[in-house]
Amino acid sequence: MRFTSRTSSDGVIERFFTLGEIPGVLWTPEGARDARPLILLGHGGGQHKTHPGVVSSARRYAAGGFAVVAIDAPGHGERPKDAEFARIVAQMRAGLAAGEDPGALVAGMHGHLAGRAVADWRAVLTAVQRLDQVGPGPVGYCGMSMGCGLGVPLIAAEPRIQAAVLGLLGVRGLAEDAGRITVPVRFLVQWDDRLVPREQSLALFDALASADKTLHANPGDHGDVPPFEVEDSLRFFSRHLS
Amino acid sequence: MRFTSRTSSDGVIERFFTLGEIPGVLWTPEGARDARPLILLGHGGGQHKTHPGVVSSARRYAAGGFAVVAIDAPGHGERPKDAEFARIVAQMRAGLAAGEDPGALVAGMHGHLAGRAVADWRAVLTAVQRLDQVGPGPVGYCGMSMGCGLGVPLIAAEPRIQAAVLGLLGVRGLAEDAGRITVPVRFLVQWDDRLVPREQSLALFDALASADKTLHANPGDHGDVPPFEVEDSLRFFSRHLS
Repeated sequence: MRFTSRTSSDGVIERFFTLGEIPGVLWTPEGARDARPLILLGHGGGQHKTHPGVVSSARRYAAGGFAVVAIDAPGHGERPKDAEFARIVAQMRAGLAAGEDPGALVAGMHGHLAGRAVADWRAVLTAVQRLDQVGPGPVGYCGMSMGCGLGVPLIAAEPRIQAAVLGLLGVRGLAEDAGRITVPVRFLVQWDDRLVPREQSLALFDALASADKTLHANPGDHGDVPPFEVEDSLRFFSRHLS
Repeated sequence: MRFTSRTSSDGVIERFFTLGEIPGVLWTPEGARDARPLILLGHGGGQHKTHPGVVSSARRYAAGGFAVVAIDAPGHGERPKDAEFARIVAQMRAGLAAGEDPGALVAGMHGHLAGRAVADWRAVLTAVQRLDQVGPGPVGYCGMSMGCGLGVPLIAAEPRIQAAVLGLLGVRGLAEDAGRITVPVRFLVQWDDRLVPREQSLALFDALASADKTLHANPGDHGDVPPFEVEDSLRFFSRHLS
């Protein structure tokens, strides 16, 4: 794990790093020396590790005492796009424009990335937990949309993750992994989401095996999650990881 | 308004009162002298103003700085049951036992009480706002199940109510009044509610005209709302009434 830059503002330190071919960012509270709970932040499709929404959530969680890490998903941000992924994305966009079922198209794209994404996150988690300011403490995962599509197989495979905030995605391709998730989950739904049919969202919430799971639905389209849900998620992680 | 008793414990003062034929309870923080936001607490069917769940929420809200009032709904608690209400309840119980649609049966019972319940709440609200420790400040309403069924027509009719926590009830008989509600609403759903079909709950959330409304769904049956939702509701009221 190689750190490439370090800046500090508003009480939060932001450090860019690479782990092999994986570029990432780590946020910690200024002055943090001891171990602390860690939140993994998965970005949405077409976004990257420093997408404004990712950075704003990360800084809020770090200000709340957490260590936070985001990485570029395969084919996203600074990472190369392989020809197969480019073909899948083009096909997905054409299908969406032609009015095909978005659930199937999006699930195909996520399915292509999931294997590498899960391996990336597990390697980054191991590396980050070796840092003094993180340590082997409790871990949460937060990801919406594609961040949920890659998060569900990750959480199903990774016993170190003990709580998760997921959502903005349907059940397509995820039912089996969701049925292996038993940690507490907060699940966000946008009630008028034009990309994710409501029934598909509710079915993914249903498929989670967690006894402690709460669905939060708000009016508006895919991108309209109200800012107070970040505060609510911070309290959720504080309750389950602190 | 006539106060009949006053006790104080754990920083909260509890005073029983009657307003005409309406028996009620007022909770305020100890030492409260100035005006403060008020929460009206509507109990569930078959319950009353000092049902354990009502008292525990009331004390939590009062400890959080609010004035809180609960009254017995018509035909409940200390209030007389008229013959017509007794007939409707017997019919409802027989129908539920026979496997009839609970939504229609429950809506019939609420419909019978709603007119009187709305008038009671409006009279109590006017009386309580004359007290120095309450005053004419912001008002919230909190009611689940029957408390929601009587709350929806109340909020639709009462401009002094500026935020509400509702839920555990379906849309039957309430769509029109729900479409007149525009204040911020938190709406609770129990995902495995055997009394309220899920689709009927989601349809009531849908019918609310509020731009700011959030649905919280948790696993479990009608009575299994997790305790952390009371804390969440307190934060919701603090955000909108303080």
